[in-house]
Amino acid sequence: MHENFNTPCVVVDLDIAEANITRFQAYCDSHNLKLRPHIKTHKLPDLAQFQLKSGAVGITCQKISETEAMIANGGISDVLITYNIIGEAKTQRLRTLSERVNVSVVADSSAVVRGLGEAFADAEKPLAILVECNTGANRCGVSSPAAALELALEISQRSGLRFAGLMTYPPVGAAEEVQAWLGAAKELIEGHGMAVSIISSGGSPDMWQAHKVAVATEYRIGTYVYNDRSLVARGVCDWNDCALTVIATVVSVPSSNHAVIDAGSKVLTSDLLGLDGHGHVLGRVDLKIDQLSEEHGRLWSDDDIDLSVGDTVRIIPNHACVVANMLDHIELVRGNSRVGSTAVVARGQVW
Amino acid sequence: MHENFNTPCVVVDLDIAEANITRFQAYCDSHNLKLRPHIKTHKLPDLAQFQLKSGAVGITCQKISETEAMIANGGISDVLITYNIIGEAKTQRLRTLSERVNVSVVADSSAVVRGLGEAFADAEKPLAILVECNTGANRCGVSSPAAALELALEISQRSGLRFAGLMTYPPVGAAEEVQAWLGAAKELIEGHGMAVSIISSGGSPDMWQAHKVAVATEYRIGTYVYNDRSLVARGVCDWNDCALTVIATVVSVPSSNHAVIDAGSKVLTSDLLGLDGHGHVLGRVDLKIDQLSEEHGRLWSDDDIDLSVGDTVRIIPNHACVVANMLDHIELVRGNSRVGSTAVVARGQVW
Repeated sequence: MHENFNTPCVVVDLDIAEANITRFQAYCDSHNLKLRPHIKTHKLPDLAQFQLKSGAVGITCQKISETEAMIANGGISDVLITYNIIGEAKTQRLRTLSERVNVSVVADSSAVVRGLGEAFADAEKPLAILVECNTGANRCGVSSPAAALELALEISQRSGLRFAGLMTYPPVGAAEEVQAWLGAAKELIEGHGMAVSIISSGGSPDMWQAHKVAVATEYRIGTYVYNDRSLVARGVCDWNDCALTVIATVVSVPSSNHAVIDAGSKVLTSDLLGLDGHGHVLGRVDLKIDQLSEEHGRLWSDDDIDLSVGDTVRIIPNHACVVANMLDHIELVRGNSRVGSTAVVARGQVW
Repeated sequence: MHENFNTPCVVVDLDIAEANITRFQAYCDSHNLKLRPHIKTHKLPDLAQFQLKSGAVGITCQKISETEAMIANGGISDVLITYNIIGEAKTQRLRTLSERVNVSVVADSSAVVRGLGEAFADAEKPLAILVECNTGANRCGVSSPAAALELALEISQRSGLRFAGLMTYPPVGAAEEVQAWLGAAKELIEGHGMAVSIISSGGSPDMWQAHKVAVATEYRIGTYVYNDRSLVARGVCDWNDCALTVIATVVSVPSSNHAVIDAGSKVLTSDLLGLDGHGHVLGRVDLKIDQLSEEHGRLWSDDDIDLSVGDTVRIIPNHACVVANMLDHIELVRGNSRVGSTAVVARGQVW
């Protein structure tokens, strides 16, 4: 049926996406783990609603503007923004947001806590803050359980702010270390008389090992809704579980072993995630997408390319989250039935 | 002055962009080479107007939707779409476009020519087609001068179509080979009684060697308007010639030699273009942007990172064309003066 689409286009199979959501919700339920999906992957309010209806406790966003777009039409009342919100313009918008929905954020430094404290000093409803912990991924986060305690104390002493727990963006395959780190921090903070209500971990690559970080109370996860080539490569899912595909048309077959499609880096993006090539052409393990220009993708085969101008191919991208972010609209299907086109409302926002 | 922007944001200095346009126009004028800028880089009608006013003969687009967005407000009357337009939906939109402005396209196969021929069979104004030639870049293009002749004959025999010349997306640093290829094709085609009115080459990396392909009549170029880290690395321009920068805020300084900024792959993109790291932090040669997540960029230094939460940095990205495509709006400045915000109208289009 993908012959019916104008290309390049991003297509999401809602049946697959919903099955992915349901399956991981059941896993979390069976482990008494709360699920808080990250909408950075789909940026679609309807899918967020489905996630909530399926049992998610709220959503995760990465940006103020994303959050504003996601809650615009109602139905979403609990948002964790896993980002250090910096600067008065943003902390003021955060305050406005917090008057509409339950919003919590993270912080990993006094500077961030100070900024939030100034914006919420006279707020009726205090802002819930999780202390972000660097459990080994070396992105953001305080560097030790002692530093987590220190920041927790600082938060709890500020009017308008409320210490709500710990958050980490964990390294992959390190459940034991993450558990030890967060467990130590929890013990230390509770030892100082503060409740650690929420311990939030996450990540799609380790989704089926989420229960191994037993101290965690909730799990944040984005890519699982669509899955992608990187997660198939890690053995987390199968090609059949990939809900997002890019449909492209062969626009040139310049030689017997190469062809060119109308999907380039402005649709597939250049994200490699450690993989070789720029996506998997469904049904054609012999093909490699070996080169991208902005609007061209080159398919290469060691054998006969066996494609003609006008043929369409369906590609599972390396990284679904960035591909879903490239076009204003995506196509929705259920199996072979077209559902319609939808705007990716929370994309392209400036800040 | 970049402390005044909410981040992350993409900022274009119009003074620099206009100087870039003027400088290369002067180069082309001095070599009797027509200039046809590729708007894929900026996707802004106002900059296209400036390019035309400066002496460009028309613009280049890569997509139908880009062209529609660029001509919507008038003032642009000549567009070359350097793409094989495939499928009835697109060829019909092309026909509609051709009734509004002078539009020409490329083709590198009989299949493409047939499709265009069907859409334009009864057109009053025939569609001008350039035969795309593979002069060594191995993307699209017919594989030999003889194949170019064959396709030129096919075009000229179709009612509604007009053979207008040759087009190539050339390999970098291969002026001699490109000249030989195109020269042979021109001679062959002219030997069969057809005029080769236009020979179109292009590319920013070789922009100052454009005159070396003496047979070319016009040059297509996109990145030169903004320049970027990849072109500085090739010695084509200087940091001061880079008109597009990304301004980001330091959101975390988790260790003495690393910091995290609020620009990730959803602004900077993962395009490397052979470079190490994800951009150049102006004024800080010691810093490397060594890792991107979607909304986080990691700065790493072998020495003291010397940055605080809330500091802003200004980044020259690896590849300006893809960065300009990421956000709905960009900021325009002239030196230290803010001009305003503008919508990037031709971005995010589905096809």
